[in-house]
Amino acid sequence: MFNFEFHNPTRIVFGQDRLKELNRLVPADAKVLILFGGGSVKQFGTLDKVRQALGNRNLIEFGGIEPNPRYSTLMRAVEVVRGEKIDFLLAVGGGSVMDGTKFIALAARYGGNAEDILTGKAKPAQLSAAVALATVVTLPATGSEMNSGGVISHQGGKFVFFSPLVFPQFSILDPTLTFTLPPTQVANGVIDTFIHTVEQYVTLPAEGRFQDRTAEGILRTLIEIGPATVADPSDYDARANLMWCATNALNGLIGAGAPQDWTTHMIGHELTALFGIDHAKTLAVLQPAVWTVCKEQKRAKLLQYADRVWDLREGSEDNRIDEAIARTRAFFEGLGVSTRLGSYGVAADRIDDVVRALETHGMTALGEKRQVTLEVSRRILEEAL
Amino acid sequence: MFNFEFHNPTRIVFGQDRLKELNRLVPADAKVLILFGGGSVKQFGTLDKVRQALGNRNLIEFGGIEPNPRYSTLMRAVEVVRGEKIDFLLAVGGGSVMDGTKFIALAARYGGNAEDILTGKAKPAQLSAAVALATVVTLPATGSEMNSGGVISHQGGKFVFFSPLVFPQFSILDPTLTFTLPPTQVANGVIDTFIHTVEQYVTLPAEGRFQDRTAEGILRTLIEIGPATVADPSDYDARANLMWCATNALNGLIGAGAPQDWTTHMIGHELTALFGIDHAKTLAVLQPAVWTVCKEQKRAKLLQYADRVWDLREGSEDNRIDEAIARTRAFFEGLGVSTRLGSYGVAADRIDDVVRALETHGMTALGEKRQVTLEVSRRILEEAL
Repeated sequence: MFNFEFHNPTRIVFGQDRLKELNRLVPADAKVLILFGGGSVKQFGTLDKVRQALGNRNLIEFGGIEPNPRYSTLMRAVEVVRGEKIDFLLAVGGGSVMDGTKFIALAARYGGNAEDILTGKAKPAQLSAAVALATVVTLPATGSEMNSGGVISHQGGKFVFFSPLVFPQFSILDPTLTFTLPPTQVANGVIDTFIHTVEQYVTLPAEGRFQDRTAEGILRTLIEIGPATVADPSDYDARANLMWCATNALNGLIGAGAPQDWTTHMIGHELTALFGIDHAKTLAVLQPAVWTVCKEQKRAKLLQYADRVWDLREGSEDNRIDEAIARTRAFFEGLGVSTRLGSYGVAADRIDDVVRALETHGMTALGEKRQVTLEVSRRILEEAL
Repeated sequence: MFNFEFHNPTRIVFGQDRLKELNRLVPADAKVLILFGGGSVKQFGTLDKVRQALGNRNLIEFGGIEPNPRYSTLMRAVEVVRGEKIDFLLAVGGGSVMDGTKFIALAARYGGNAEDILTGKAKPAQLSAAVALATVVTLPATGSEMNSGGVISHQGGKFVFFSPLVFPQFSILDPTLTFTLPPTQVANGVIDTFIHTVEQYVTLPAEGRFQDRTAEGILRTLIEIGPATVADPSDYDARANLMWCATNALNGLIGAGAPQDWTTHMIGHELTALFGIDHAKTLAVLQPAVWTVCKEQKRAKLLQYADRVWDLREGSEDNRIDEAIARTRAFFEGLGVSTRLGSYGVAADRIDDVVRALETHGMTALGEKRQVTLEVSRRILEEAL
């Protein structure tokens, strides 16, 4: 096991009918900016319930945070925070709203050009303050509700940032708030959670047995409840298990002391930026291809994955690995998500564009051993066609 | 899944050579009381390294916290904290030192009679302050390094207390600091971790799939590495896995949203108080008996345990359950720990004393459904003879 530091101070308030506890959780004298995306939190009454729970606090709303939230949108919210002297941000939504809110929390207290937060010019240590924030989760997927990172779109790229200052103070996870999600978004959430897990698990053996077993537990749970929760939104237990798995897949727990990959995410970000493909769908397309191309390096963990997640113990090593990859692909397809680039209108002639974007963004040595050069990324994209 | 709240702000600093980071982690102007047990932290140089890392901070030592730490001992430390105006407590040791330090942290800031903290007269909400504390773990077992509870001995009983104020600010988990432990203490740590896990897992089905799978992962890991880490103290990976499992078995993760039992612990506390049997050994004696006596209520989870932890899928339900209990017993015995009360010099004629102690301490309705009356406890003790 590698040395590690683990610290996650976010308070999770999980279950049915928890919105009313906002009154206990948000400081009584806070001036609150409620952030959200499109109209669904209004349409389904979540915003009303949030406002009601917050009582007579001074509340301002900022809606319209888009999927793959844009720097320019978020900077408008930063102006509101500064102008209105907001001291508490409440994100009500999925990963985009939560990630955007984290960026706003940092940017509003950052003295320099806020683009520094995205480019890495502002190192975590230089970011010394952030507005307090919390979340109400309406889409289980990104794990943003219990971690210190976010992804922001700007000038044709997607940028990842981290700061311990943006751990949510609390996150309310009420599975019933997700019952109104369209099935495609639920399928995306299952796949996003699955890939977050394997990016920290199908790497190299490192004697992190608790981490491995916990990752395997998330994967088996997703396989068990994924189809059910896409098909039947009102199955509380299935949705609750998806929601709690999504949080634990990316709260630092399974990655602590373990090698991490993230190739699929980094190439996937370029596919979203260039072609507008949903984040989760880029992951479903790329992950089987990453495993096929990087099979030798990942052999030991792919065999473990085949054994412990898919119960594949017969046949040659290569057969077991190939079958595990095939079953993973079939699992994604069974959720209604295509795993081939072609299905999203991207053909071989666009691979050059993707490789160029990776180069522009410095993604020239990805993977748990920095083995994924631009040439390897090209092979992955070819395999994903 | 039940509704739950999960909040665990303790920072974990895990791995080799981490003691030097005390200088970063402890406030520079802190006046520190270093608390420890017997002489081993002196003998093996841990205390010297701690002092060295803390540099020129004002340091005072308080040694002699015994196993099953006593109220009277801890109240002497409270006098030191108050008299010397200590503002940071650093526990260097195992569960007894950590639990004792948590009690000291609360008692030193409590206005009333500190016995109230044990009897429950001082409800968590009334305990409004505690001295800051942190831990350096030398014995992986109790999980006290990442939770908000403790167990204190007083007037012939063992008392459990909880307060969110006593989460350690940080805990340093360096597996190499445990290499000098005697094998019996390591075996105790394996069993303590095992029983912490099953007390939150072998209960009733509640659709906590992540929690169940994570619990099963801890149990399988302990079965894999338990004998190795008892036999070979210098096997870093085995010890590291034990240490991280011990922490995760009782940091709230696997119990969040799940039914919990704790019968074995509550009866075990009386066996320690009356007969001086090591805490972990009382658990090894009682757990198979609890399962045998409560087999019907726990049937579904015992079958799941047999399947997922011991790979028992053939034969009748009763055969699988009995075999799982037998394998658990054999696992404990294989670590050198007897699972029969008689081996510790306790015969049938002392059962009345134990039942009377349970009654005195209000332990008249234990278990996940409060099904363990004094009569059921008696049957468990008879089964454990």
